[in-house]
Amino acid sequence: MALIGILGGMGPLATVDFMERLIALTCSAGASRDQQHLPLLVAHLPHIPDRSEALLGTGENPLPALLSGIDMLNRNEVELIVIPCNSAHHWYDAMRAKSRAPIIHIAEASVAALPPGVRRVAALATGGTFHSGLYQRILAARGFESVEPDAATQRHIDACIREVKAGEIEASTGHLAAALDWLVDQGAQAAVLGCTELPLAARPMKAPSIPMIDSTLELARATVSYGLSRGWNRAL
Amino acid sequence: MALIGILGGMGPLATVDFMERLIALTCSAGASRDQQHLPLLVAHLPHIPDRSEALLGTGENPLPALLSGIDMLNRNEVELIVIPCNSAHHWYDAMRAKSRAPIIHIAEASVAALPPGVRRVAALATGGTFHSGLYQRILAARGFESVEPDAATQRHIDACIREVKAGEIEASTGHLAAALDWLVDQGAQAAVLGCTELPLAARPMKAPSIPMIDSTLELARATVSYGLSRGWNRAL
Repeated sequence: MALIGILGGMGPLATVDFMERLIALTCSAGASRDQQHLPLLVAHLPHIPDRSEALLGTGENPLPALLSGIDMLNRNEVELIVIPCNSAHHWYDAMRAKSRAPIIHIAEASVAALPPGVRRVAALATGGTFHSGLYQRILAARGFESVEPDAATQRHIDACIREVKAGEIEASTGHLAAALDWLVDQGAQAAVLGCTELPLAARPMKAPSIPMIDSTLELARATVSYGLSRGWNRAL
Repeated sequence: MALIGILGGMGPLATVDFMERLIALTCSAGASRDQQHLPLLVAHLPHIPDRSEALLGTGENPLPALLSGIDMLNRNEVELIVIPCNSAHHWYDAMRAKSRAPIIHIAEASVAALPPGVRRVAALATGGTFHSGLYQRILAARGFESVEPDAATQRHIDACIREVKAGEIEASTGHLAAALDWLVDQGAQAAVLGCTELPLAARPMKAPSIPMIDSTLELARATVSYGLSRGWNRAL
């Protein structure tokens, strides 16, 4: 039996949302019984130090805790690792170097899903991820132009993420809408919700004015496609 | 760091629903940041043979796969195990005997949550769990009288569970309502949703005519209470 390892808990609701996407995509691919779903091992480790604070120089380095989670998953012989937290991917190379199992990169999967014809893209992420340039580098390498938030807009994005983490989804949606409005005014033709809390805030929104890429969903699509193509949903 | 082990994937959506309850209860207890949540290790193993079929004598024995999941969680040094699947608790004693970590019993937690003044209780569960007498024994030991489904009502319950496992929540709700109507006619004063798929079918229902105990929620309450009282949400 092949296990897919999820390094999760960053944050807790985002991991649950990611698992729900995995299951819905597997149902859409034809699964109707438990035994047709993908086996997972979820290291749900919410105590990992805040990624955004570390990237802004105001918090503890999460890398030792991230590597300890990667190590736990490898000790349990997972065949693939996915991490439904964009900010954690700042440390992707260090995690990949210590992992026997391959790790799907959430930001690469998300940028690859941008619709054709789009050139100017706003990646919404934690303040730390924005500061680290993670999305800006991947967008530039793929020929996209980044539309960057100003300080007030980034405050809306960070407030939105904080509220989702506190379970206050309703309050979070208004902050996301305000950030998107400003970015569209600056010429953004598409948005990447580059933090796995943001899709939870976006779901209650009606018809957004530009296409939005859901990084949780894109990581789930890549994971299900990887697992189903290898027949991992069939019990041995 | 203390880990709570979840033996899940039975079925997949029910495990996600259970994790969502754990997180919501932890938020209600005051958590607003990732680091204030409970660390979990989720062995999400949907390939475990169908528990209800085994109990009805028409399917493979799931005990070896259940024990292998319990063993994986213990190897990872979890301090507590919970299993958001009622039918799997037919094998509770065998799993408990092989586990270093204690295992909270979902049916005991659910029956303990019945409101005062109630005497006649309908436990809705898989055909296999009904046939095994799991809930009837626990209800009798606590002084309750069981109101049992007839064959047609059990078919509604099984159809409801099958539809939730296939992701067809809307269709499942009608079957649950039909089963509840018949059980209320037979004098049931309260119902235990003794299968973790059933609360997903029940959630869209408006004002049920009798109190319903949600076994997923009661297991989540017992788990959060166990973990928070020991301070497991604080990182070491």
